[in-house]
Amino acid sequence: MPEARTEMTAGELAQQIGAELRGDATVVLRGAASLPNAGGGDLAFFASKQYQDQLAATAAGAVILPEPALAGYQGTALVVANPYAAWARALELLFPVEWPDPGIHHSAVLDDGVDVAPDARIDAQVVVGAGCRIGPGAWLEAGCVIGDHCHVGAGTRIGPNATLYAGSEVGDRVRIHAGAVIGADGFGLAPDGEGYRQIPQVGRVVLEDDVDIGANTAVDRAALEETRIGQGTKIDNLVQVAHNCRFGKHCIISGLSGFAGSTELGDHCTVAAQAGVAGHLHVAAGTTIGAKAGVISDIDEPGVYAGFPHQPHKEWRRDQASLRQVRSLRERLRALERAVNSDSEGDA
Amino acid sequence: MPEARTEMTAGELAQQIGAELRGDATVVLRGAASLPNAGGGDLAFFASKQYQDQLAATAAGAVILPEPALAGYQGTALVVANPYAAWARALELLFPVEWPDPGIHHSAVLDDGVDVAPDARIDAQVVVGAGCRIGPGAWLEAGCVIGDHCHVGAGTRIGPNATLYAGSEVGDRVRIHAGAVIGADGFGLAPDGEGYRQIPQVGRVVLEDDVDIGANTAVDRAALEETRIGQGTKIDNLVQVAHNCRFGKHCIISGLSGFAGSTELGDHCTVAAQAGVAGHLHVAAGTTIGAKAGVISDIDEPGVYAGFPHQPHKEWRRDQASLRQVRSLRERLRALERAVNSDSEGDA
Amino acid sequence: MPEARTEMTAGELAQQIGAELRGDATVVLRGAASLPNAGGGDLAFFASKQYQDQLAATAAGAVILPEPALAGYQGTALVVANPYAAWARALELLFPVEWPDPGIHHSAVLDDGVDVAPDARIDAQVVVGAGCRIGPGAWLEAGCVIGDHCHVGAGTRIGPNATLYAGSEVGDRVRIHAGAVIGADGFGLAPDGEGYRQIPQVGRVVLEDDVDIGANTAVDRAALEETRIGQGTKIDNLVQVAHNCRFGKHCIISGLSGFAGSTELGDHCTVAAQAGVAGHLHVAAGTTIGAKAGVISDIDEPGVYAGFPHQPHKEWRRDQASLRQVRSLRERLRALERAVNSDSEGDA
Repeated sequence: MPEARTEMTAGELAQQIGAELRGDATVVLRGAASLPNAGGGDLAFFASKQYQDQLAATAAGAVILPEPALAGYQGTALVVANPYAAWARALELLFPVEWPDPGIHHSAVLDDGVDVAPDARIDAQVVVGAGCRIGPGAWLEAGCVIGDHCHVGAGTRIGPNATLYAGSEVGDRVRIHAGAVIGADGFGLAPDGEGYRQIPQVGRVVLEDDVDIGANTAVDRAALEETRIGQGTKIDNLVQVAHNCRFGKHCIISGLSGFAGSTELGDHCTVAAQAGVAGHLHVAAGTTIGAKAGVISDIDEPGVYAGFPHQPHKEWRRDQASLRQVRSLRERLRALERAVNSDSEGDA
Repeated sequence: MPEARTEMTAGELAQQIGAELRGDATVVLRGAASLPNAGGGDLAFFASKQYQDQLAATAAGAVILPEPALAGYQGTALVVANPYAAWARALELLFPVEWPDPGIHHSAVLDDGVDVAPDARIDAQVVVGAGCRIGPGAWLEAGCVIGDHCHVGAGTRIGPNATLYAGSEVGDRVRIHAGAVIGADGFGLAPDGEGYRQIPQVGRVVLEDDVDIGANTAVDRAALEETRIGQGTKIDNLVQVAHNCRFGKHCIISGLSGFAGSTELGDHCTVAAQAGVAGHLHVAAGTTIGAKAGVISDIDEPGVYAGFPHQPHKEWRRDQASLRQVRSLRERLRALERAVNSDSEGDA
Repeated sequence: MPEARTEMTAGELAQQIGAELRGDATVVLRGAASLPNAGGGDLAFFASKQYQDQLAATAAGAVILPEPALAGYQGTALVVANPYAAWARALELLFPVEWPDPGIHHSAVLDDGVDVAPDARIDAQVVVGAGCRIGPGAWLEAGCVIGDHCHVGAGTRIGPNATLYAGSEVGDRVRIHAGAVIGADGFGLAPDGEGYRQIPQVGRVVLEDDVDIGANTAVDRAALEETRIGQGTKIDNLVQVAHNCRFGKHCIISGLSGFAGSTELGDHCTVAAQAGVAGHLHVAAGTTIGAKAGVISDIDEPGVYAGFPHQPHKEWRRDQASLRQVRSLRERLRALERAVNSDSEGDA
């Protein structure tokens, strides 16, 4: 169990996250843990009835929960309408991220004309190309490489060994995790004689404010204009976003999913793990695409889709179930054929 | 819209790319854009009838197009037989890649006995191992690591934070994007008592001339001899190429696809995104493997394949369509059973 | 063919790997190669009857093989019960990995209070955060970044440009390949108003002894407690392991597979390429999950599973075969409908 870096009473915490306190406001919280692992100094969290037994049995100092859960719990509670968001806020308070002091490490290499805000932080072995602007409170972690003429917004954190290729535009409060690559050339090839010629990729990548990019994810630059990830969209690890994609605001994109060139996602789309979307398609705002799905045409009607080729999730479930009955259908058909044929023979 | 780094008249450009000019040869081109976004100083591009309306309405200064498209376009045109290749060449002229001046950055670390061509470029924080040879005009971008005894060919560019493990052999004009890993140990395990023992991987990787390797792609070294990627083959981001694979010339390999050990692809194969090929298989030259396909046996007959287990693409389409009819087949079967049974009862 | 770094007679090698020698003990072995490529100074290896012809024809100086294979081979043999493990051991002897001399490269940056064992090796451009402990004989390769308060065990090797985020705990004899990212924040999001709020991820990653992590693989830190990879488990390239996963001992996890949050694998599980396991599931020890499978519920019964949704492998094979018969079933059904209907008409 991690130790919190600050300690607070349940009462103080309730006040700061806007929760209603039930029980002992003086309990001191020094950490956080899951219901079964929590001790008397830990905050814990309950959101799903599936864990009702764990709630009843927990030794946690206090638990964040929704009002209806109070019935099954005797201990100190912080009652909220949205337990997930309250839990996130409480952890931010108990475990404040320690951003290092501003400054530029002596081993970092900054090219000509780099504009670094006075309170930004640049770690060891970082490379920043010519003409970059690094915003207030930004943090470039060890070994990351920022190509020429990039813009890194305020409060943005670029992970170790991540790469921004030249010309990338990154908004405020963006988080790019280690090893991610932003702005590599798109995979655009022109057949030319025996082989292929790479079509120059002269566009760029724009990550709007509050975007998250997971570890080792790749977002390619546009062929001509922009690959753009909308405000607040969160992308998991090992995702491939090809050139010219345009993702709306507040999308959630899970690991190992892939997006071919010029895919457009509307706002508030969710794409599950290992799904793929073919190129030059538009996916309506609010659409959910299931794990391993393969989207091969526009989705105009928001809903939940699955399978490859994609179909409404309910139909996919039904068809997968049907598949498991084909063998018995074959046997029934054979029996029927025998019955009909012997009938016919009887007729003859 | 990106601004071109050079400017040319439509006439000059036509001459340089071998196009026939129709219209005003004196139009000055300073950039490139898609048909709907292009302005009077932009070059644009038309190849597919799907965008006929965009061609008719474009404000582009000039458009690269094939001869039959002239009928639907009044403006200045650069007429060519192969618009994709012509577009690639035109963009190379309008947006020449600015390779930095030759030289070795003072923060780069070169081990003993490294042989760097005088006009090569080695960026900040690069590490080059003992005995490496770096060819004429090669460019090692910031933070990349070149293991001992590698060879990097002429005009080859290794991206930021990419890694070549020891002994890798990279041809001329190769492009390796950021974060790619060439020559990591293959995943070769021998059961040994309770667990597994890694089989030493003592082979190497050879990338022939004109190969492209995408961001965060991994190409493992051979167990004994060579993993080899043939001349002109282009590999997208986040692809896994296991030990001992041998890819032919001029293949196209899309993102998130994976190749198990000792896979052989003939020349001119195309593998779409998220496909996989099992180990020790041979895929005939000229084969196309669809997205998400899983190839589980040799492909001797070139063609288009899809599904898992793989099958000819047409059959896969047909079978996926059939699957969606199973429910109605079941209903028809039930109706028939009732009819036959009531007949039988009628007979009795 | 790689040249061995040491040379040994067949007799010496047999003694060291515990093999029984048949033939000429004085043959000098200087390398290793596959049966068809091996020459008189090479060791080769035979395990599968599939390659019986290659064994008969090989020019290898000596071959490791199991006793029953002697019948088909006249040359010098090293006879063993487990050829794979013997081959691994022989290659370790012929190609000893040259670990560099201990020491800390002058370009490496170590923060305050780092405890480095005297015989550890830290390469160029490495960054080690405050309070780290680097064990005896550990090797941090060029450009890797070790966050604050990590522990790297004895004999562990961290590849070029790999990243350990703060607080990661890495056991002895672990191998982490280039570009891998250990301990990035899990993908934990709380809906909050219009968008999402990242839930602070305050847990850590523990890699037990003898774990292997492939190139560009990502293992996320736990939300609260630990993401843990059990002793001897081997993970291939480009794998995504989400927060709170717990893998048992001696598992094998192939490339491009993905594991959602809180997945538990028992000991000795095998997961093939591009498979996925949904979150909060338990997979029984000894389970094998096939390529591209999607596991969507607990697996309590060890066995071989495939498909999405997963099912026993035999059923998956059968159902995939059935799917290819649906079209003919439809035709037979139509014929039967005609027969029955014409019967009915005949009756009328």
